Amino acid sequence: MIGELTDPTSRLMTGLANGCFISFEGTEGAGKSTQVQLLAEALREEGHSVVVAREPGGTTVGERVRKILKEPELTGLLSPVTEFFLLCACRSELVGSVIRPALERGDIVLCDRFSDSTFAYQGFGRELPTEQLQSAIDFSTGGLVPDATIYLDIPLELSSARCRTRELAGIVGPPDRFDQSGEAFFRRVDEGFRQLAEKHPGRIHVVDGRGNVETVARDVRDAISAAELGL
Amino acid sequence: MIGELTDPTSRLMTGLANGCFISFEGTEGAGKSTQVQLLAEALREEGHSVVVAREPGGTTVGERVRKILKEPELTGLLSPVTEFFLLCACRSELVGSVIRPALERGDIVLCDRFSDSTFAYQGFGRELPTEQLQSAIDFSTGGLVPDATIYLDIPLELSSARCRTRELAGIVGPPDRFDQSGEAFFRRVDEGFRQLAEKHPGRIHVVDGRGNVETVARDVRDAISAAELGL
Repeated sequence: MIGELTDPTSRLMTGLANGCFISFEGTEGAGKSTQVQLLAEALREEGHSVVVAREPGGTTVGERVRKILKEPELTGLLSPVTEFFLLCACRSELVGSVIRPALERGDIVLCDRFSDSTFAYQGFGRELPTEQLQSAIDFSTGGLVPDATIYLDIPLELSSARCRTRELAGIVGPPDRFDQSGEAFFRRVDEGFRQLAEKHPGRIHVVDGRGNVETVARDVRDAISAAELGL
Repeated sequence: MIGELTDPTSRLMTGLANGCFISFEGTEGAGKSTQVQLLAEALREEGHSVVVAREPGGTTVGERVRKILKEPELTGLLSPVTEFFLLCACRSELVGSVIRPALERGDIVLCDRFSDSTFAYQGFGRELPTEQLQSAIDFSTGGLVPDATIYLDIPLELSSARCRTRELAGIVGPPDRFDQSGEAFFRRVDEGFRQLAEKHPGRIHVVDGRGNVETVARDVRDAISAAELGL
């Protein structure tokens, strides 16, 4: 069932011969969570065993740390470097206790955000130095890189509009530390995702996220098919 | 009041011209917390402004993370790498919001554990790779290195005996993840501290921690006087 690896070094480093690891990336409101769920359903209907994970969180420790990161009262009480290390802790735990075991079983893992988000948000957004981020991220993942990444691309204006709608609809809680980071921050994050997609064209597949849910889901499924993962 | 810097690079990197930073290191039961308090009192009586900090913890976020690290129920639910990144998060926050501002004011900062503990516990004890630890630790501290470090040296047997006494006396809670790491772990930690002291003889001052509290306090004060910090 599982096909080519876009980045053979990841599997060589981790010794994971089976499984398939797909991450979803994009700014707030891009539709990641929805599309992760839809792809998981589609793949399960095709008979695949699928594990869904999210960052930060997805483990007992990770959810505890996520709470610290998202708590509005702790906004401003946490430096960008601290934020970064908390995210590394979540990722290390998620890779070790969820993603790696699932890949070893031969499952497909769909992850809502992974290392690219750290480069976009903490590297570009918070302007932390890339070299030091790269070194710590590699340590936190044990060198694991997704076989494919779906980048859901939407304009910043649509991102803001969707976030406002969610807030008004009560789907999400009050603005957290990330929501409060301001327009210039989100502009840098957006630019970060675009640069990452240009830098890794073999792994990162850009999908237009502006359409309705079904259209985007079809484009995501097409992108996965085209990614030569044997899916 | 403030004298020489044992490691000029730390201050050059952080731009802290004043203040004085002293860390205390050693295994469980070495007497670090007691000696930090006694030295703080002595220095205050001499007219110095002293800030006392501890790792992990010492900040709002740090104490929250400390709880995760120390919770007996989370023992075994947290990989060594995750543990390491949580410690980096605590340290980054402590340096940024407590230690650095205090040094900039010209205060003396006494810290119960700092980076050497990470090398001893996570590097030697958990056997994580030194090079990756060093890189992340430097990022978490912004390159800050103590002007002097007091290593309270006690034999492992005394460490175990003191920990048992504390437990029986109800001074400490139930054994946490570190207490449960086993004898071989603590033997490696102990060896780690010894190797660090040999590697940094100009910064790390070894003080015999076997004697009574007053004797050790006198030896600590003597070591600080001899450390050419102008104290």
